[in-house]
Amino acid sequence: MEWEKLLDHYGLLIEGKLESYFSNLTQNAKDYHPFISELYDNIREYSLRKGKRLASCSTLLSYKGYTGKIDENILDVCVGIELYRHCILVHDDLVDKDKFRRGGKSFHNLFTDYDRRFGERITIFAGDLIFALALQCISRSGFSIDKIDKALSLLIEGYCEVNESQILDLLFEYAHPNAAEWSKMAYKRAASLFRATILIGAILGNAPERDVELLRDAATNIGYSFDIQDDIIDTFATKEQYGKKPGGDLVLGKKPLHIILLHERASKDELKLLNNVMRKRYITNTEIESIRQVIRRTEALKSAKEESKRFAEFAKNLISKTSMSDEIKDFFSSFINYIEESLDWYK
Amino acid sequence: MEWEKLLDHYGLLIEGKLESYFSNLTQNAKDYHPFISELYDNIREYSLRKGKRLASCSTLLSYKGYTGKIDENILDVCVGIELYRHCILVHDDLVDKDKFRRGGKSFHNLFTDYDRRFGERITIFAGDLIFALALQCISRSGFSIDKIDKALSLLIEGYCEVNESQILDLLFEYAHPNAAEWSKMAYKRAASLFRATILIGAILGNAPERDVELLRDAATNIGYSFDIQDDIIDTFATKEQYGKKPGGDLVLGKKPLHIILLHERASKDELKLLNNVMRKRYITNTEIESIRQVIRRTEALKSAKEESKRFAEFAKNLISKTSMSDEIKDFFSSFINYIEESLDWYK
Repeated sequence: MEWEKLLDHYGLLIEGKLESYFSNLTQNAKDYHPFISELYDNIREYSLRKGKRLASCSTLLSYKGYTGKIDENILDVCVGIELYRHCILVHDDLVDKDKFRRGGKSFHNLFTDYDRRFGERITIFAGDLIFALALQCISRSGFSIDKIDKALSLLIEGYCEVNESQILDLLFEYAHPNAAEWSKMAYKRAASLFRATILIGAILGNAPERDVELLRDAATNIGYSFDIQDDIIDTFATKEQYGKKPGGDLVLGKKPLHIILLHERASKDELKLLNNVMRKRYITNTEIESIRQVIRRTEALKSAKEESKRFAEFAKNLISKTSMSDEIKDFFSSFINYIEESLDWYK
Repeated sequence: MEWEKLLDHYGLLIEGKLESYFSNLTQNAKDYHPFISELYDNIREYSLRKGKRLASCSTLLSYKGYTGKIDENILDVCVGIELYRHCILVHDDLVDKDKFRRGGKSFHNLFTDYDRRFGERITIFAGDLIFALALQCISRSGFSIDKIDKALSLLIEGYCEVNESQILDLLFEYAHPNAAEWSKMAYKRAASLFRATILIGAILGNAPERDVELLRDAATNIGYSFDIQDDIIDTFATKEQYGKKPGGDLVLGKKPLHIILLHERASKDELKLLNNVMRKRYITNTEIESIRQVIRRTEALKSAKEESKRFAEFAKNLISKTSMSDEIKDFFSSFINYIEESLDWYK
């Protein structure tokens, strides 16, 4: 697929920049204290694990869409975006007590020389630190001061939003949100990440004001579409497709859109089944298959897929109206097409 | 005391600004989600608890020292500094499992409608959010874009430093740092907070470059002096003086300078006494008095006090060399004098 090739290509460039960024960071930290140097080594290993680099590539490519080029300044910003992405994951995994992340241990499980609490406590401060480093990368990227001001404002606003949505996401574990509440939460989740990353690239690339507004809406719609698909994968993918056991969100009591719709439509007995799983915080293969069956029967799956596709179509339409280069429009469109197509894999 | 009167006076101004800031914030959040509005109410209550406002007043007063005035812009920045101070405390209390803060519950204990874990998880995201709000206040304060750029850079650097020092402080619970390591940790603790807050005020107030450098060193020395004094209070104050049970740091296994010096000088039996307290994580009145006795006998207390006073004298000398107004020089000098004098209360 076109979009994956581009991510592979530009992801490598960004990883190269990340490598040299971290090598400076750990070197300087060595003069300060060996443990801080070790900490930066852990952040380096965690951030450089194999991944799509979708967030930083979104910034890079929307910049290229307006300037036709890649330069050192934007790559420095992309290092900041990667750190931003990872500071969110570090705290997210700690809050959800996730054990693994992208083929390795979650950050709070990396400190095996000490007791469990040590890793958890360190991770609170490490997440804070990584966000500050992200801001610093953007602040020192060499763009003009007014552009940096705008880029920082976008990232700071994005971080406010992401944390508000994380807090609602937690609250929803204890509540029964309706679809409107879900929508408010999701407006600030993946949608916020797409907005911040795409708009930072566009603004640094001198995109016209009209395009910035189009991209703001497009990013929001990509985010909604992506969130719904991502949540469907967690419930419906096989372990082979997903790389981990499906149903993790259900066990945590999360409320993805298809579960909210199920709640509105399921019978009492069907709801009992779901509540039982959430109470014991463990799910068997038989149980997840029964829950999937209810999601299908109530057409919660069908409706969620339709919503995701509706957002995807909006997004593509908005992207097509911008003045970005065709190469970059094609990238975003083919990525959105992939989200839509992949929805059909889960039945 | 002169400095306390000034803090009382300007603290009230800042609290007024904080009130109106939070009233906007909760109002806007109501349209988003009632729980986010409730969260901001909690942040408001937590931030507005009675306190000295030393951090934000340091910014306000160093600004006044160069401009001779207080204006709305600097008060907006001070709201940001207060939020900055509190985002650090919110995570700090969570990491140390502290139950109380300034006459109220610690932030993670405010969410009593839910289980304990809920408050702890929310607090990770809430601390992140409060830091982002702090940056936003400065970013939107109305100063010129180049001044905002410098102020944000100082706060971001400060946040990196504070988190690095917090991480070392945690590590030291599991280790036996020497005085040089303590000094590296403390360079980024209170010293970092004084640097960020004083320098932001100075730079926004157009302080000459030479003064910025003098203040950077002065702030560092104030920080060292303050940290040593603050730690001595935790071990030596009575419950009546301190408002809480003394010895909290010892029970947590923290390594203040006077304990590091004790470790270098105490006998095996004396060390056994200290280790026993740390192992059981509870301290009786008899035990704390015995530990105090060892700190006195080894002259660790005397040496720590001398260090604190030495830093204080450096700081006063540096402050006197700046071109700040006499009113503000007097403020900082009388505050530093207070640190020195208060050392003599603990024997």
